[in-house]
Amino acid sequence: MKLYDLELSGNCYKVRLFLSLLDIDYELVPVDFMGKQHKSPEFLKLNPLGQIPVLEDGDLVLRDSQAILVYLAKKYGGEDWFPTDAVGIGIVTQWLSTAANEIARGPADARVGTKFGFGIDVIAAQKKAEPILNLIEQHLSQTENQWLALNRPTIADIACFPYIALAPEGGISLENYPAINKWCNQIKKLPNFIEMPGISK
Amino acid sequence: MKLYDLELSGNCYKVRLFLSLLDIDYELVPVDFMGKQHKSPEFLKLNPLGQIPVLEDGDLVLRDSQAILVYLAKKYGGEDWFPTDAVGIGIVTQWLSTAANEIARGPADARVGTKFGFGIDVIAAQKKAEPILNLIEQHLSQTENQWLALNRPTIADIACFPYIALAPEGGISLENYPAINKWCNQIKKLPNFIEMPGISK
Repeated sequence: MKLYDLELSGNCYKVRLFLSLLDIDYELVPVDFMGKQHKSPEFLKLNPLGQIPVLEDGDLVLRDSQAILVYLAKKYGGEDWFPTDAVGIGIVTQWLSTAANEIARGPADARVGTKFGFGIDVIAAQKKAEPILNLIEQHLSQTENQWLALNRPTIADIACFPYIALAPEGGISLENYPAINKWCNQIKKLPNFIEMPGISK
Repeated sequence: MKLYDLELSGNCYKVRLFLSLLDIDYELVPVDFMGKQHKSPEFLKLNPLGQIPVLEDGDLVLRDSQAILVYLAKKYGGEDWFPTDAVGIGIVTQWLSTAANEIARGPADARVGTKFGFGIDVIAAQKKAEPILNLIEQHLSQTENQWLALNRPTIADIACFPYIALAPEGGISLENYPAINKWCNQIKKLPNFIEMPGISK
C-alpha cells in the first residue's frame, strides 16, 4: 500500500495518523509540492484534481482523505472506527462532510492562506471557522459526547481533528474552546498517536 | 420521517430525489428561507449550523445532505445504492466528498451567488467549477464509467447530480460536456425521477 504524501498537509496527516492508529505498514511516497509534482502528468493520472493524499492499494487508487479513511476503516479497522448500521454510519458521515466542507472552508483555508498564500481570503476563512468551531465546542460540551460520534473514537474524530488542531496556524485561537482542547488531548492519548509539524503531544 | 426542506436548494432536492427513487413516504416540512426560519432558535436546535436539509427519523436528527443519503441508502436502499465492501464504499465516498467540497465550492457557489448574492465571489466559483467538471467529463467519457461509481447508479450520482445539472443557473455552460449531459439524461430516466425548478426531464 502506497500513500502519496505531503508532510505539512493536514489531509495527508489524517491518513498517516489513522494508518498509525491501525498499526498498518505502508510505503510513504513524498510528493514534491514546491516543485509542483502534484500537477505533473504522472501524478494527474493518479488524481486528475492534482491533490494529495492519494492512496494506492493494489488496483485501487483513491483520492480524498475522507474516502481513504472510510476505505481503511472498512478494510482494516472493523466496526470500531466506522459502524455498519444506518444510524451510526449516517452520524459518522455527517462529520466526514463537515470535514470536507465547513472545516475545509474555515480553519483549513485560513491556515493554507496564512502559510502559503494561494490567493485565499484569510479573513473570510477565519470568519467561516467560527460557526463550525462553536458547533463542535457545543457538541463536545455535552457529557454524553466525549467524542464527535457514537461516544467512542471513530473516523469522524480523525477526519475533523487535524485542521481543528492546526487552527492557530491560521490565526484562529483555540483558547476559548475548552471542550475542543480536551477532545484534542484525548486524541493525542490514543495508542500509536503520531505528531506532525504544528501538532505535538 | 420528516424532511426540513427548501424547494430551490439543490442539497434538499438531492434528498427529495433519493426518497422518490426509493419510493419512501415522508413528511415535507418547508422552511421559510426568506423569513430566516433556518436561523430561528427552534431550527438551530435541529441544526446549529442553520442549514437545510435536516432529516428527522424517530430520535435521529441528521444534518448534511450526503450523510442523509448514506443513512437512507443504508436503511432503505440496501446494497444497490451504497455498497458494503471496502473498495466500493471507498469509491462512493470519494464522490460524496467531491459533492461536499469541489462541487459545493464550484458550481453550487456560482449558482447561489448568481441567484441570491450572499457576498459570494461568482467569478471565483465559476473558475473553481472548471477542474471538477473536466474531471467528471473525463471520468464519464470512459466506456466503463456509465455512472460515477461501480458502473451502476449509486448515491455518488445522486450527491453530485443536482449542482452539476443546475450549473447553467450559475453562468456555467454545460454545452461542451457531452458525457455529463448523457449522464444527466440517464439519471432523469431512473424510475420515479422527480424534477425541481431548473431541472426538468
